Amino acid sequence: MKRLGIIGGMGPAATADLFARVVDMTDVDTDQEHIDIVVLNDPTVPDRTSFILGKDTSPSFVPPLQDKASQLEEMGCDVLVMPCNAAHVRHEEIASVLKHAKLLNILKETASLANSLGCGCAGILATDGSIESGAYQRAFEGALMTSVVPDAEDQRLVMSAIYDYVKAGRKAPMGYLDAVCDHLIEKGADCLILGCTELSLLGIDRVYDGVPVIDSMDALAYASVLACDYPVKDILSEYC
Amino acid sequence: MKRLGIIGGMGPAATADLFARVVDMTDVDTDQEHIDIVVLNDPTVPDRTSFILGKDTSPSFVPPLQDKASQLEEMGCDVLVMPCNAAHVRHEEIASVLKHAKLLNILKETASLANSLGCGCAGILATDGSIESGAYQRAFEGALMTSVVPDAEDQRLVMSAIYDYVKAGRKAPMGYLDAVCDHLIEKGADCLILGCTELSLLGIDRVYDGVPVIDSMDALAYASVLACDYPVKDILSEYC
Repeated sequence: MKRLGIIGGMGPAATADLFARVVDMTDVDTDQEHIDIVVLNDPTVPDRTSFILGKDTSPSFVPPLQDKASQLEEMGCDVLVMPCNAAHVRHEEIASVLKHAKLLNILKETASLANSLGCGCAGILATDGSIESGAYQRAFEGALMTSVVPDAEDQRLVMSAIYDYVKAGRKAPMGYLDAVCDHLIEKGADCLILGCTELSLLGIDRVYDGVPVIDSMDALAYASVLACDYPVKDILSEYC
Repeated sequence: MKRLGIIGGMGPAATADLFARVVDMTDVDTDQEHIDIVVLNDPTVPDRTSFILGKDTSPSFVPPLQDKASQLEEMGCDVLVMPCNAAHVRHEEIASVLKHAKLLNILKETASLANSLGCGCAGILATDGSIESGAYQRAFEGALMTSVVPDAEDQRLVMSAIYDYVKAGRKAPMGYLDAVCDHLIEKGADCLILGCTELSLLGIDRVYDGVPVIDSMDALAYASVLACDYPVKDILSEYC
């Protein structure tokens, strides 16, 4: 049995949400059978999107995340996760400081889940930074899938859902991103990807208009339980 | 601004729940303004109720919690919390290992919240261990209030809600504890106390049949934000 380390704070609500999903997906009956988890929820990590897009003079988020990863490894964590899609643009650089612990990759785990559901084209909902970096698109290529992204106007709505609502602790109106999802399906998506941890908090169901909605947080929680060698609940049957 | 340490794992679902409540009650707009939190979610801490009641040869939960408290203090946490009511029966002994950090007391924070709502008699829903230790009853006496507890048959229902449902990851039937609440109100309770962190997960509203339902987890989260010197959302208005 392995210990899980969560590099959190990006944002705090997403961190709490991943924690809850890992606990919920661990298929055990008593407290004592659950995964030993350490969470470092330091919210002062600089904004990922600003840095990736090279806006202003945003400081890099990479060194603080390398520090957290090393600290969790020293605390005996074998498996590490970052509940922040945008930070994964620099996944390899962050993981490079680790001696033996494994830093899971939310992008790859999400593509892997989409693949095992038999999907061929992913419609990606994510931050400007994630989309422009092409990191998700490459993850789907790695899983032999294609992908489509929102046009500029729809992308502004996605960013608004993330920053003006979830990160600000406000509830977004029902169906706020329905049009964005409709347009992605029209472009050929046979699954929708919630590729930003804050989008997980909008409460979108696992099936939208007949296509699976794959929440990257579910994919990461699912992979976390498996990587720690604990029994996992079946979530695959919930996407159809 | 202070760093918060959560001594978790008792149980893991309650730990994730407290974390989420602290984040939710922190009244800020961006990730970076949130509280720096460290969570040690070690679920191997022995069962609190078995030890308090002296059942079998249950090992003590006190030394592992002292270790966690010291570890969090060494990691720079100024304010510590334990999202487990039963463990508070030994609060002073656990806090005695700390050099400067403050271990909040969920029992006192709950009584304090009930007091500020103008309540005079608390109906206590908690584990056998918490009830039989008299720890909550003393906390309400300390706040110049009286208290009532369920009779034996109702208490069995409370324990079943905690162990057979929440701790086992199963959803309890709607209104599972309604009769227990009714009986406490008949005995004179003018507020109901969810005095076990697992009861917080049953989804009982903040007002039941006209009386405030004070969730000890809300009281602890509220006190955590204040003790860390962060702006807190107003929850008091939601009890009427």
